[in-house]
Amino acid sequence: METMRRTKIVDVLKSTDFGATVNVRGWVRTHRSSKAVDFIALNDGSTIKNVQIVVNTSTTDEQTLRQITTGSCLSVTGTLVESQGKGQSVEIQCKDIKIYGLCGSDYPMQKKGQTFEYMRQYGHLRLRTNTFGAVFRIRHHMAIAIHQFFHDRGFFYFHTPIITASDAEGAGQMFQVTTQNLYDLKKDEKGKIKYDDDFFGKMTSLTVSGQLEGELGATSLGQIYTFGPTFRAENSNTPRHLAEFWMIEPEVAFIDLNDLMDLEEDFIKYCVQWALDHCQDDLEFLNSMIDKTLLERLRSVVSGSFKRLTYTEGIDILKEAVAQGHKFEFPVSWGMDLASEHERYLVEEHFKRPVIMTDYPKEIKAFYMKLNDDNKTVQGTDVLFPQIGEIIGGSVREEDYGKLMEQIEERHIPMKDMWWYLDTRKYGTCPHGGFGLGFERLILFVTGMQNIRDVVPFPRTPKNAEF
Amino acid sequence: METMRRTKIVDVLKSTDFGATVNVRGWVRTHRSSKAVDFIALNDGSTIKNVQIVVNTSTTDEQTLRQITTGSCLSVTGTLVESQGKGQSVEIQCKDIKIYGLCGSDYPMQKKGQTFEYMRQYGHLRLRTNTFGAVFRIRHHMAIAIHQFFHDRGFFYFHTPIITASDAEGAGQMFQVTTQNLYDLKKDEKGKIKYDDDFFGKMTSLTVSGQLEGELGATSLGQIYTFGPTFRAENSNTPRHLAEFWMIEPEVAFIDLNDLMDLEEDFIKYCVQWALDHCQDDLEFLNSMIDKTLLERLRSVVSGSFKRLTYTEGIDILKEAVAQGHKFEFPVSWGMDLASEHERYLVEEHFKRPVIMTDYPKEIKAFYMKLNDDNKTVQGTDVLFPQIGEIIGGSVREEDYGKLMEQIEERHIPMKDMWWYLDTRKYGTCPHGGFGLGFERLILFVTGMQNIRDVVPFPRTPKNAEF
Repeated sequence: METMRRTKIVDVLKSTDFGATVNVRGWVRTHRSSKAVDFIALNDGSTIKNVQIVVNTSTTDEQTLRQITTGSCLSVTGTLVESQGKGQSVEIQCKDIKIYGLCGSDYPMQKKGQTFEYMRQYGHLRLRTNTFGAVFRIRHHMAIAIHQFFHDRGFFYFHTPIITASDAEGAGQMFQVTTQNLYDLKKDEKGKIKYDDDFFGKMTSLTVSGQLEGELGATSLGQIYTFGPTFRAENSNTPRHLAEFWMIEPEVAFIDLNDLMDLEEDFIKYCVQWALDHCQDDLEFLNSMIDKTLLERLRSVVSGSFKRLTYTEGIDILKEAVAQGHKFEFPVSWGMDLASEHERYLVEEHFKRPVIMTDYPKEIKAFYMKLNDDNKTVQGTDVLFPQIGEIIGGSVREEDYGKLMEQIEERHIPMKDMWWYLDTRKYGTCPHGGFGLGFERLILFVTGMQNIRDVVPFPRTPKNAEF
Repeated sequence: METMRRTKIVDVLKSTDFGATVNVRGWVRTHRSSKAVDFIALNDGSTIKNVQIVVNTSTTDEQTLRQITTGSCLSVTGTLVESQGKGQSVEIQCKDIKIYGLCGSDYPMQKKGQTFEYMRQYGHLRLRTNTFGAVFRIRHHMAIAIHQFFHDRGFFYFHTPIITASDAEGAGQMFQVTTQNLYDLKKDEKGKIKYDDDFFGKMTSLTVSGQLEGELGATSLGQIYTFGPTFRAENSNTPRHLAEFWMIEPEVAFIDLNDLMDLEEDFIKYCVQWALDHCQDDLEFLNSMIDKTLLERLRSVVSGSFKRLTYTEGIDILKEAVAQGHKFEFPVSWGMDLASEHERYLVEEHFKRPVIMTDYPKEIKAFYMKLNDDNKTVQGTDVLFPQIGEIIGGSVREEDYGKLMEQIEERHIPMKDMWWYLDTRKYGTCPHGGFGLGFERLILFVTGMQNIRDVVPFPRTPKNAEF
């Protein structure tokens, strides 16, 4: 029996081959004893559902059985039978149990109903719980959906560098990367640190975005997308910030603002629909345990079209709301960056659906966005979602060399190490655009979880690099 | 005409809708003039093939036409016609040309036949050449194949952290990650740098492998794989080393050595077969321009089974070869690490096919590999490939807490920050194993390229972090 091939629990639960002998392996979720039989709920991570093992106590060694507590790891061989119990179609009548590993009473995940904060201390073991099993199976599915979406449409997956010597976007504080001996830093006569002997011969950091390199990919391969880790060294201890997170950044040659909005909307609907199609059990669990409006919210995103409007139209609606007596904390005026309260008003109260906002004042957007003919607004496009706020930020890029240089100079952006970026506008420049999506933001939306630390296996946050 | 929808060149070339008006957009590869017509070869990155644009010089503005040089970016509208020329089935009779961007005679990719070394200086523009277009389309396809392979088999994609505070594997020199002001480093009374104020409150580095965290995933979700960047701060200026590269590391609960070897062989054959099935045009180009034995080598890998043998058997074969007069630079004896010449002898001369070698002396392998009953060898498994050498390194992991601790103590491995790893052996330990594949090694094999810097868009190597 020992060498019998294992069947995954997700497959066992779908089987109707009653009477067959099967072997399952996994971890004990619960172990209950009654008079003549014990019930062991076994989970192997392949599905949120456990398979119930029915053990005849008269034919099984009592000593062995007593050791099997929550968290133990077993190999069980037995007969697949139709279940009489509620909520399950099959169970296994145990013929043989092999113990791979027992689990002491100090097992941190023993008790049910621990807080997420408590579980975060045990990032390695919380993965064995229903909630985190569900979250990380869904995370997998969202990654697969993303690759499938772009692959089907002829995009090429493009690996932009993690270690970078440029910080043109100035998107935030960066982590420095070095191999220098910090006890013996070389300095020049003015006391400035010399990077000649550092690994790359210059000061380097962890990337905050792959977009600029992504543009190099798009202006040669046509359509690319990145999907990799990005970093922000911001000291923000909030449920929305990670120091290390994954970003998806598609970039497309020959795209205009309308096609870009179509791409954004198609993309995010595809991902949400994928979750609804492939993660039913996990979503139902989260809907019942974490957020009762989760499924309803997911379905509403895929069923209607997103409202598209310009920033200027958005400001007018907000001003009208103020005139009608709506109170915002921050005053509304053209030129301001929308605060979360403004975005939520538009999405959740006014339109009651996702919003794509475009044509923002150039002053509040990045230097590379394409300037409109009004000389005041740029072709930026943000997708605003209920609860999450901005889930996608994108733009058509300025492809005109002269106009781009004007923006760079106006903003005093250091372009010393950026000659390669400007080259794309010099040699056969082309209209192009793209967007960025924070992967963990998407996972928050799709799982209904509230804290971004609970949708990445091992979060990196200020003072925390555990595991 | 301006707003006509663009068709990708890969689709235009497959079309038989002769007489239809189409719009294509891309970059000029060549522009030849003859008496009555000009020929422009246009490429948009969607395929290695160009579409030929036939321009009637009598109806097109000569001034405009003369500006269109190699590298220029165009939008061309015209009639799809059957081609009379060799090597192409369709061409486009031009009705309208719009110039997006001209390209000066200083365009670095103007000349054909530049060396790869020259092109490496122009990482942003080499992407527009045939060779690098082919390499990076194949790179995309290999990434998709990897996700498809694991997804189809119920593995979950698992994001292990990039920034880490642990270095238990000691796999190599690491890059330090810090937000400290290097001009004002805090030190304690003994002169030791204090990391309390650093972002994570301790010394942190870039990961060299996701395996240890991957094991946490496998011992809860059952089967996971990583696919992300890893880093080595080795000062190795060779065609085989990168400071930043991508690794794939699957990890599987309840797997034994035989199943692990099956997984390795199935996996790599799946990837190579995917390339043969999906990248025909690009592979044919590389086979004719880069390596005339490429296709033959790829086909041979998928057609036969890999030779499986133990390290001890391998040593015996090498000793026999020496006895028969074969000269190796390094002497052959049991206990040594195989050199490249030994691996190549076994793979290329003795067996003439890929080899999976197992059961290595414990002294030359990592602490976490499962010890055999002989107490001398461990269940490591390397896949050795022609030309490439080791393409996969894997093992069954030691799941016994006591035995694992013995290995850790014997090797004096600092486990201070590794309590979470040991916990997996404490709470419901399970047999498990996995392997690692360097993504760029796979791309080298599949493309026939010789230098690893030419299979990643923007290589990171000593003294080089350009782009």
